[in-house]
Amino acid sequence: MPKKKLPEAAPTGAGAQGATSYDVAELAGVSQSAVSRAFRKGASIAPKTREKIMRAASQLGYQPNAFARGLITRRTNLVAVVISNLTNLYYPEVLAELTQRLSEAGHRVLLFSLSSESEVDAVLGLIWPYRVDGAIVAARLKDEQIRQFNDRGVPIILYNRVGEAEPAASVCCDSAAGTRELVRQLLAAGHRRFGIIAGPEDSYVGEERLESARRHLAAADIEPFLYRGGFDYRSGEEGLRALMEASGGALDAVICTNDAMAMGAIDCARATYDLAIPERLSIVGFDGVGPATWGGYQLTTIRQPVRRMAQAAVDMLIERIEQPGMIPEQRLFGGEFLPGRSARLG
Amino acid sequence: MPKKKLPEAAPTGAGAQGATSYDVAELAGVSQSAVSRAFRKGASIAPKTREKIMRAASQLGYQPNAFARGLITRRTNLVAVVISNLTNLYYPEVLAELTQRLSEAGHRVLLFSLSSESEVDAVLGLIWPYRVDGAIVAARLKDEQIRQFNDRGVPIILYNRVGEAEPAASVCCDSAAGTRELVRQLLAAGHRRFGIIAGPEDSYVGEERLESARRHLAAADIEPFLYRGGFDYRSGEEGLRALMEASGGALDAVICTNDAMAMGAIDCARATYDLAIPERLSIVGFDGVGPATWGGYQLTTIRQPVRRMAQAAVDMLIERIEQPGMIPEQRLFGGEFLPGRSARLG
Repeated sequence: MPKKKLPEAAPTGAGAQGATSYDVAELAGVSQSAVSRAFRKGASIAPKTREKIMRAASQLGYQPNAFARGLITRRTNLVAVVISNLTNLYYPEVLAELTQRLSEAGHRVLLFSLSSESEVDAVLGLIWPYRVDGAIVAARLKDEQIRQFNDRGVPIILYNRVGEAEPAASVCCDSAAGTRELVRQLLAAGHRRFGIIAGPEDSYVGEERLESARRHLAAADIEPFLYRGGFDYRSGEEGLRALMEASGGALDAVICTNDAMAMGAIDCARATYDLAIPERLSIVGFDGVGPATWGGYQLTTIRQPVRRMAQAAVDMLIERIEQPGMIPEQRLFGGEFLPGRSARLG
Repeated sequence: MPKKKLPEAAPTGAGAQGATSYDVAELAGVSQSAVSRAFRKGASIAPKTREKIMRAASQLGYQPNAFARGLITRRTNLVAVVISNLTNLYYPEVLAELTQRLSEAGHRVLLFSLSSESEVDAVLGLIWPYRVDGAIVAARLKDEQIRQFNDRGVPIILYNRVGEAEPAASVCCDSAAGTRELVRQLLAAGHRRFGIIAGPEDSYVGEERLESARRHLAAADIEPFLYRGGFDYRSGEEGLRALMEASGGALDAVICTNDAMAMGAIDCARATYDLAIPERLSIVGFDGVGPATWGGYQLTTIRQPVRRMAQAAVDMLIERIEQPGMIPEQRLFGGEFLPGRSARLG
C-alpha cells in the first residue's frame, strides 16, 4: 500500500493511517458524503457510484473509520467486557466464549480486567468516552452503577450476578440450586461433619454458594466449619489446613465454593494429611473448569454451561442494542452435576 | 443524572449517551472549541474558562468522546491486543498483565482472541477501522502483515515471536536457551532415551522449543521419539501413550513443549502405566504456569518472566507511539529454571 500524505487535520481519518474518505471521493470524482454512504449498511447509493467508490478505496487502501462513522450512525460496534480475576481458571473460558460470540455478531471487545470485583468503580469512567454500544459485566455493580448505564441508554448484561433495586438484564448459572444438589448428594451418602472453604466476601457468586450451603446444611442440623479464601489454589491448601485444625481432624466432607480451591484442598489432604480422596474425605468444587477433569483430580463439581451462557449474554445484548426499549430479563441456567471421583456418593 | 435530549445527529456525541460538547459550551457560555481544549491535555486555555467549563460539564454529566477527540488529537488511547488460545493456561496471565500495564499507562485494550495462530489474517481488517494507537500481537504474523502495520504507521510489538525480513519490535522469552538448559540437565542426570511431545506446527514458540530440543539431543547422538499435540492437557495424555507405544516402553525422559501437555503426560504415566514420577520417568514442561507449581505436579520447567515481559512490551509500545521513528528492537528475556520434582536431576 502506498503511503499517502495527509492534511494536517484529516477530517475523517485520525493519524497517519492511510487514505481518508476525502481522498477516495477525489479519486472517484464523487462527494465525501457519497463515500460515507457507500460504506454504510443500508444507505441509499447508486450501484454504479458504489462500484466506482469501492475501486478507488481499494486502490488507495482506504478503510472506513469506525468512530467517524459512529458519529453518524451512533454505533461503534464496540462492546465493553468487564471481567474480574482474569487469572482465575474460570474467567478465561468465559472471555474466550464472549469474544468469539461477539466477534461472530460483528462486535469488538473493549476489555477491562479487574483484580477484584470492587474495583469496578474506577472502570466505569473509562468506558463512557468510547461510546460503546453495550456492555457485559462480570463484576459486582451497585444499583447506582447500573443506573449510570440505564441513564446513558447503554444496554448492559450482568454475567453471573443480578441487579438489586435497579433493573438489569442478566445471565446466571444457578449457584444456589447447584450447591443444594452437592449438599443433597453428600448428605445422602452419609457425610455429617462439614467444612466450607468460601471465596472473598465481595464475590457475588461466592456468597450465593456459601449461603446456599449453610442453609441446606442447617436444614439437616449441621453447623459447618468455615474458612474464607481468595478463590485460588493456595487458599484451598490453607483452607484445608485451617479446617483440619479447627475440627481436630474430624471432617467427612469439604465444600469449596470454586474448583481451584477444591484442587488445592485435595492436594493438601493427600500430601499433608495422607488422606485418601474420596475414601477418607470428600471434597467438592463448583464451576467445572478444565483442570477439574484432569486425571489427578476428577472433581465432583457443578459444571456451568459457559458456552450457552455466553451465547445468551451476547444474544440478549444485541437485542437490546437493536431495540433499546426492551424490559430487562433474567436468564437462569442450571449447572450440570459432574459426579467425578473426589466425593463418596450414595 | 438528568437525561438530555439530543439533536438528531449530535456533532460530537454518538448515541443517546448524555450531553455533547455543544451543550456544555452553551451552558458555560463559551465556544465548543474551548470545551474541546479544556479536556485536552496540554491545550492552552485560561484557568477561569476551564473552571466554568468543568462546572458545566459536571452539571450535565458530560464525558468527552474519545473518538471525536481522536479525530483532532490523532490518539484514541486504544491498543489492539491479539492473543491466540485464550483458554490455554499461559495466555490469561499474559493478557491480565498486559491489560494492567496498559491501563496504568492510560490505554485501553481492544481484544482479539484467535483459536489458532494462523487465523490472524481475518483479524487485521477488523483492527484498522478503530484507529488504534498501537498493537501487541502474540500470534504469528507474516512479513506482509507486519508491513501493513508499518505502512499505516501503527507501532506494533510482537510478543514471543520475531519478524523475519520485515523489521518489528519484539519481546521474547528465550525458548531455545530454556530448552537447551532442560536438555543439559536431563543429559547430565544420565537420561538417554527421550520422547518429545510438541505443539502444533503453526506455533512459533512451539517450533523454537522443538528445534532446540532436537538440536541439543542430536549433539549427544540421541534421536528422540516425537509426538505432535495441540498444547492442551489431553494432548499430553495421548502423547505419552503414543511415545510409550513407539518406544516399547523404553523411555527415560519426556520433553513437553509446554506445561499443560507435561501435566497430562504425568497423570497418564501414573494412572495408565503406574510409573513413579520422577523415579521411573522424568517429564519436563515449559512456561511456568500456575498449576505447574501445584502439589500434584511440581513440574520441572522454565518459568517465563511474564510480568517483566509484559511491562517491557507496554513500555516499548508507548515509546513508539510517542516517537514514531524509533528503530525496531528485540528484547530477549531469559527464563528461570524451576527444578520442581517431575524430573531426576544430577
